[in-house]
Amino acid sequence: MSDGQTGSTHETRQRIVRAGTELFRRSGYTGTGMKQIAEAAGAPFGSIYHFFPGGKAQLGEEVIRTSGAVYLGLVATLMAPYEDPVAATADAFTAAADTLLKLDFADPCPIATVALEVASTNEALRQATSEVFDSWIERLGAYYAAGGIPGPAARETAASVIALLEGAFMLARAARSTAPVLSASGAAAAIVRAALPEG
Amino acid sequence: MSDGQTGSTHETRQRIVRAGTELFRRSGYTGTGMKQIAEAAGAPFGSIYHFFPGGKAQLGEEVIRTSGAVYLGLVATLMAPYEDPVAATADAFTAAADTLLKLDFADPCPIATVALEVASTNEALRQATSEVFDSWIERLGAYYAAGGIPGPAARETAASVIALLEGAFMLARAARSTAPVLSASGAAAAIVRAALPEG
Repeated sequence: MSDGQTGSTHETRQRIVRAGTELFRRSGYTGTGMKQIAEAAGAPFGSIYHFFPGGKAQLGEEVIRTSGAVYLGLVATLMAPYEDPVAATADAFTAAADTLLKLDFADPCPIATVALEVASTNEALRQATSEVFDSWIERLGAYYAAGGIPGPAARETAASVIALLEGAFMLARAARSTAPVLSASGAAAAIVRAALPEG
Repeated sequence: MSDGQTGSTHETRQRIVRAGTELFRRSGYTGTGMKQIAEAAGAPFGSIYHFFPGGKAQLGEEVIRTSGAVYLGLVATLMAPYEDPVAATADAFTAAADTLLKLDFADPCPIATVALEVASTNEALRQATSEVFDSWIERLGAYYAAGGIPGPAARETAASVIALLEGAFMLARAARSTAPVLSASGAAAAIVRAALPEG
């Protein structure tokens, strides 16, 4: 790049975004300090403000959008091999329960805690979380439409399935148990089945 | 009381808990300061530490448990008049969408934001949120059992319906739209219907 940005500074920037993503998952946006992010990224404190002159709000927005895009890809990868949207949905919840365990009950959703924290307090970040959720609903809705759910019901089904997954993560993290996600697997299957045309 | 607590100091204490509940709903636990709570309660700053010598953690736990108990009562009141658990569930979601609007998209659930914030960071508060969710699941599960959902499925259905409502609040607050809660109404009905014995 003409401003002389090297591969190495690009990597530092990426490490900062990754560290922010991991810390927001555990401690949320308000509970995570810039100093903590710098330390977790192994980056000098000052370098954060070099990369993010807008400070925590700018870094927060980039974390939301970057991790949102990663998850959008995950939705597609996870569902693609399935012909049956009911089985695909149920299995996605079972896989999510595994992820929750692997993360030691940090939130598998990178934007959930931030979304609740900023919804009434930071309009730019609220907007960013809204656009990310919307991109997931859109993608999953297109998958359900291809699987036979008619019209606007495909999108509504996608929104409810994503809502159920987010809420199941909340109950599971509070209880430190995967049970709410595993029982939500059957409930998610029921939502999708009910939206498919009879027969 | 023998320590000379008067009606008026009891009221001050209650105002502090109420102010904490309202502020957590909007800004979460980490994002709310003790000074802010004192101001909202119209109480001298020092009085908060008089009533809550354990500081914010003690006040936080009391807010979680108190508002949890209030909501437990709400579940019972909301569902009691219905004989059909499917209609009761669908109508509860429609009512929740109204509440969301009235609160100008603050969280209708008083413990959701706090639950995500503390799940990986504060063991005592995590435990408190877990016990509150559990009390709701237990009560709604008993309602579903009385409505004909057999055995452990009643409790699992209750957990999934509560998860769906929490997640729908998350999407609705992010989008500043009641649409996710209104479409979750039909999805919640589908979950309950699928859990009822055939016929």
